[in-house]
Amino acid sequence: MILGIDVGGTSVKFGLVTPEGEIQHATRFMTADWVNGIGFVESMKKEIGEYLKKYPVVKGVGIGWPGLLSLDRTKVVLLPNIPSIVNVPIVEILRSEFPQIHFKIENDAKCAALGEYYFGSNKQRMQTFLLLALGTGVGSGVMMSGKLFLGGRGNGTEVGHMLTTRGKSLENQVGINHLIAYTKEQLALDTAKKSSLHKEAELSPKVIADHVSKGDALAIAVWNDIGTIIGESLVNIVRVMDINNILLGGGISGAFDYFVPNLKKAMLQHLPTYYTDDMYIGKATLENDAGLLGAAGLIMEAI
Amino acid sequence: MILGIDVGGTSVKFGLVTPEGEIQHATRFMTADWVNGIGFVESMKKEIGEYLKKYPVVKGVGIGWPGLLSLDRTKVVLLPNIPSIVNVPIVEILRSEFPQIHFKIENDAKCAALGEYYFGSNKQRMQTFLLLALGTGVGSGVMMSGKLFLGGRGNGTEVGHMLTTRGKSLENQVGINHLIAYTKEQLALDTAKKSSLHKEAELSPKVIADHVSKGDALAIAVWNDIGTIIGESLVNIVRVMDINNILLGGGISGAFDYFVPNLKKAMLQHLPTYYTDDMYIGKATLENDAGLLGAAGLIMEAI
Repeated sequence: MILGIDVGGTSVKFGLVTPEGEIQHATRFMTADWVNGIGFVESMKKEIGEYLKKYPVVKGVGIGWPGLLSLDRTKVVLLPNIPSIVNVPIVEILRSEFPQIHFKIENDAKCAALGEYYFGSNKQRMQTFLLLALGTGVGSGVMMSGKLFLGGRGNGTEVGHMLTTRGKSLENQVGINHLIAYTKEQLALDTAKKSSLHKEAELSPKVIADHVSKGDALAIAVWNDIGTIIGESLVNIVRVMDINNILLGGGISGAFDYFVPNLKKAMLQHLPTYYTDDMYIGKATLENDAGLLGAAGLIMEAI
Repeated sequence: MILGIDVGGTSVKFGLVTPEGEIQHATRFMTADWVNGIGFVESMKKEIGEYLKKYPVVKGVGIGWPGLLSLDRTKVVLLPNIPSIVNVPIVEILRSEFPQIHFKIENDAKCAALGEYYFGSNKQRMQTFLLLALGTGVGSGVMMSGKLFLGGRGNGTEVGHMLTTRGKSLENQVGINHLIAYTKEQLALDTAKKSSLHKEAELSPKVIADHVSKGDALAIAVWNDIGTIIGESLVNIVRVMDINNILLGGGISGAFDYFVPNLKKAMLQHLPTYYTDDMYIGKATLENDAGLLGAAGLIMEAI
């Protein structure tokens, strides 16, 4: 049994993961409580200790982090949400505290790709794929011939910060908050109030997607545009990585059917058939559990 | 001794390469003569046979191609200039013709990176770097921990076809012909004929660069713009590959001093210090010989 830990800016999720990818005994801690209490590292040590005492069947702990890691995977080197963890030799600290346990750390988006690899329903087909996680942030992880791609210095595939053809970063256009802000801008331009979205008190990717199914022209145009932007960014990623199996996950991917047609159109427009003939664009299969399962996947690689 | 072969759309260059990177007995064949004569493959077999007879000291032959290759490096899969070579099992054909000789093939831009790795004056420093070849086309090759990066399906780092913030491909903006066309456009807008470039009968990267040193505002603006475009594309490559050792080669790189300031400015603007603190942007060191030397480098890896 493996303990998976998914560190986030808001919460830290723990869960025991079976080799079949079932999550048991999940717990959620508030990141702020850890930071403001005895400190993040001490809190992590304490709660891992509690889990190991309670579940002695655990042989390894995998931890996913929403930041950049050292190439040797011994520490976090950039994590604006939890500055106190930066450059702390966290793996060494945990190994000396719990010497009989395997510890591994990884970036959370890369964990999500690992999670899809080990536990997703696509796993048999895909030795090489890109997982694009479209949420508040835009992250990605790449499996290449069954191995996580780290890049030259350990932090490749930070695709949310790539510049698009419109000069802004991908995340600053298709991240959830930006998608909502963009929709509001379009609504402000719709002075005749033709769009049924005007009647909504609150906008979310789901609400905007629901109006597509009602035939709302503004909602359709928003998702078309999102699809084009993501598709053009994928063109650039494909040119660099030569990967044409792409899984889309995260909160935005609920609107898969509404933005993927334009996404594919952009890719077909800018890529020769070498890339597109056997291209696969599909939904990620694990949703919110991908990060935690992938963290556990780190240990499946090690033991 | 290794026979390096650099296949191009115009010519095919042969040269014996010593382990120190010296080129001896270089010959240049016209690609069109091979295609229109007994055929490309037969011509290649014949000329390789002549070299091997004349120089029995040759133990291996490395061949660089200006196109896409199969992941297993047995054949060329896309090469618009020489369609008759596509999908021909060229390595197998050459091995059965010359069974005592090692044969390896690679993409030419990747060969150029290999050439810099084995024979460039940067070689001691750089285990991981990107070579950006800025010529009529824009290509690149990446060495990652001393190994050529091929990408998921064998043809990664085709960066000339990445889309820039202006919506066109990198090559269609900074490739030599496009650079000249862009300069002519700017000259057409300069109706007061302030630019000293109006007096030039023919424009080339070198001519345009020469006018920068004379303080010509239009020439300065052109190179500034080229620098920004390349820099923004490098931002995207760096985000995907996490490589911050970058060598610039090709015909455009003669104007290094004139476009690199804006190139760096764009990178500093869009990348956090994690990437830029120890970033290295330098000139490639091998110029026109990089492809042939890199083709020979293929065999240095093998024997």
